[in-house]
Amino acid sequence: RPPPAAGGAKSISHYPMNGLTSSWQPLARQEHVLILTPITRFYEEYWNNLINLNYPHELIDLGFILPRGREANQAIQRLDEAVNALQTGPKKNRFASVSILRQDFDSPFSQSEKDRHALSSQKERRAAMARARNSLYTTTINAGISWILWLDADIVETPASLIQDMASHNKAIIVANCYQRYVDHGESKIRPYDFNTWQDSEAAAKMAQNMGDDEVIFEGYAEMATHRTLLASMRGAGKDINEEVPVDGVGATALLVKAEVHRDGAMFPSFPFFHLLESEGFAKMAKRLGYQAYGLPNYLVYHYNE
Amino acid sequence: RPPPAAGGAKSISHYPMNGLTSSWQPLARQEHVLILTPITRFYEEYWNNLINLNYPHELIDLGFILPRGREANQAIQRLDEAVNALQTGPKKNRFASVSILRQDFDSPFSQSEKDRHALSSQKERRAAMARARNSLYTTTINAGISWILWLDADIVETPASLIQDMASHNKAIIVANCYQRYVDHGESKIRPYDFNTWQDSEAAAKMAQNMGDDEVIFEGYAEMATHRTLLASMRGAGKDINEEVPVDGVGATALLVKAEVHRDGAMFPSFPFFHLLESEGFAKMAKRLGYQAYGLPNYLVYHYNE
Ligand SMILES: Nc1nc2c(ncn2[C@@H]2O[C@H](COP(=O)(O)OP(=O)(O)O)[C@@H](O)[C@H]2O)c(=O)[nH]1
Ligand SMILES: Nc1nc2c(ncn2[C@@H]2O[C@H](COP(=O)(O)OP(=O)(O)O)[C@@H](O)[C@H]2O)c(=O)[nH]1
Ligand SMILES: [Mn+2]
Ligand SMILES: [Mn+2]
Repeated sequence: RPPPAAGGAKSISHYPMNGLTSSWQPLARQEHVLILTPITRFYEEYWNNLINLNYPHELIDLGFILPRGREANQAIQRLDEAVNALQTGPKKNRFASVSILRQDFDSPFSQSEKDRHALSSQKERRAAMARARNSLYTTTINAGISWILWLDADIVETPASLIQDMASHNKAIIVANCYQRYVDHGESKIRPYDFNTWQDSEAAAKMAQNMGDDEVIFEGYAEMATHRTLLASMRGAGKDINEEVPVDGVGATALLVKAEVHRDGAMFPSFPFFHLLESEGFAKMAKRLGYQAYGLPNYLVYHYNE
Repeated sequence: RPPPAAGGAKSISHYPMNGLTSSWQPLARQEHVLILTPITRFYEEYWNNLINLNYPHELIDLGFILPRGREANQAIQRLDEAVNALQTGPKKNRFASVSILRQDFDSPFSQSEKDRHALSSQKERRAAMARARNSLYTTTINAGISWILWLDADIVETPASLIQDMASHNKAIIVANCYQRYVDHGESKIRPYDFNTWQDSEAAAKMAQNMGDDEVIFEGYAEMATHRTLLASMRGAGKDINEEVPVDGVGATALLVKAEVHRDGAMFPSFPFFHLLESEGFAKMAKRLGYQAYGLPNYLVYHYNE
């Protein structure tokens, strides 16, 4: 299914949405996937992992969005170079299309790990992220897209079959477990990184009850003991990588979504939605729209280690 | 600004969002407008009014969405004929592009006036409308679009300068006052039609406070006396057509929206959002995103009279 005609003979396009599937066998059905990445820094390792994904590149559209500002200027330059090299290289490696959006607003914070993760920064930061994600998908989803893969720009390692693996679960929303590699006394180890995928708890529900409409619960901060069950903590070494668990909040580091979920209106709230922002609020909104999110405790992807 | 490249040389597109304006002078800046119409019945009068809009057609993309089902089969046939005739006719009349989407679900109700407006039908009906609108804009907004004009398929008369007139107010969201022509004892008269544009009231706020998350307030039903101030009732005969008033709920019969509002994530809730659905919920969500909606009490458009 081609993207909308742009200035063709009569410029009329018909899109029967019931002809568009998002199935557990996307490859067999030649389903189109849109990979979306908000990006402030360009990592070689992200790019190499991306181009090594073994879902056919001609079935993949890429979309990037960058904030204004100097750091993003550098990122866009390196992204441009990488994209240009790829799209003029061997045909089989090329992606179907690449869209690079530049926001009309800057990222609200310096991008050092410490600043980013300070609790005081979270509300403004997650709101900016949400707006970036919404602009990105709204502008790039066309009528031919079956799946959206949200993949953060600092995800440096995934299985090459990421798309096929996650789609095989046939869930409307499914998220990998985002870990990080590090070296401890010369030994290579892994540790949890993303705390945004969780199952809700009574403590969090109680916290929410006593909050005003504009207050937000953030996960992973000692100041707010939510006692939610984190996907990060559900991993069992050597356990089935296909194990799936229902979740109430999701992170968007490596998140596969059936396009109909976004088409139905599930977006990333930049305002507190049931006291949740951005990807966590997205899962809640999707639930209100009738879609249940799932996490994969033993299926790991790795975040860059700054 | 052209729509995203589809399979061009390298298929790489750059979209600096700060180069995209939605200004009070869209014509002078050659801004692109996307007209979106959910449609179950095709009215000749709607089509004639649409093609008489005097904003340059080459700056206008059209998007339609139809449900499944027999009635829509007839509508799509007539729409196709009209579109084909226009897009193969004189160049100056042609629109930049026309996208026709067909839902994968049927409209939940028969479309007779009485059935549509029964209070018992509203929740399901407005939810289906919301889903249709969300699919439509998500699939058709591209990076070149500055404005979205929501125009219902049964709006049969507007000023030819509708787009310029509404844009000149330079509001993120602005809605015309939707009336209906009828004949009374051989005399042609007008009466209010759309009650979805209103300013909130204390009575409605109190009603909301005592409701569960899933309950909805519908406007225009005696069973639910909201005492909201309706745009329909603010009209003054012979008064300034440029008068504008802030509103808290909007109807979508003739609604002009800056594209950034949808890009930021404002959608049509198909679930109760602050006890509001669809276009009324859209205004509330936009407000949460920082956008205020306005209504034009003396600027009239006319709904078909069944
Ligand atoms: N476009 C855009 N991307 C952002 C912004 N802030 C962060 N990002 C990107 O969004 C993703 C997640 O942000 P990050 O700061 O890594 O979140 P963390 O991993 O939770 O610390 C990464 O790919 C970032 O490069 C922003 O303001 N605008
Ligand atoms: N695609 C789609 N369009 C619909 C559906 N129901 C109504 N419409 C269209 O949406 C617009 C508003 O609906 P309508 O029934 O006229 O609402 P009313 O004017 O408030 O009675 C009209 O253009 C209808 O043709 C639906 O289920 N799917
Ligand atoms: Mn990160
Ligand atoms: Mn109508």
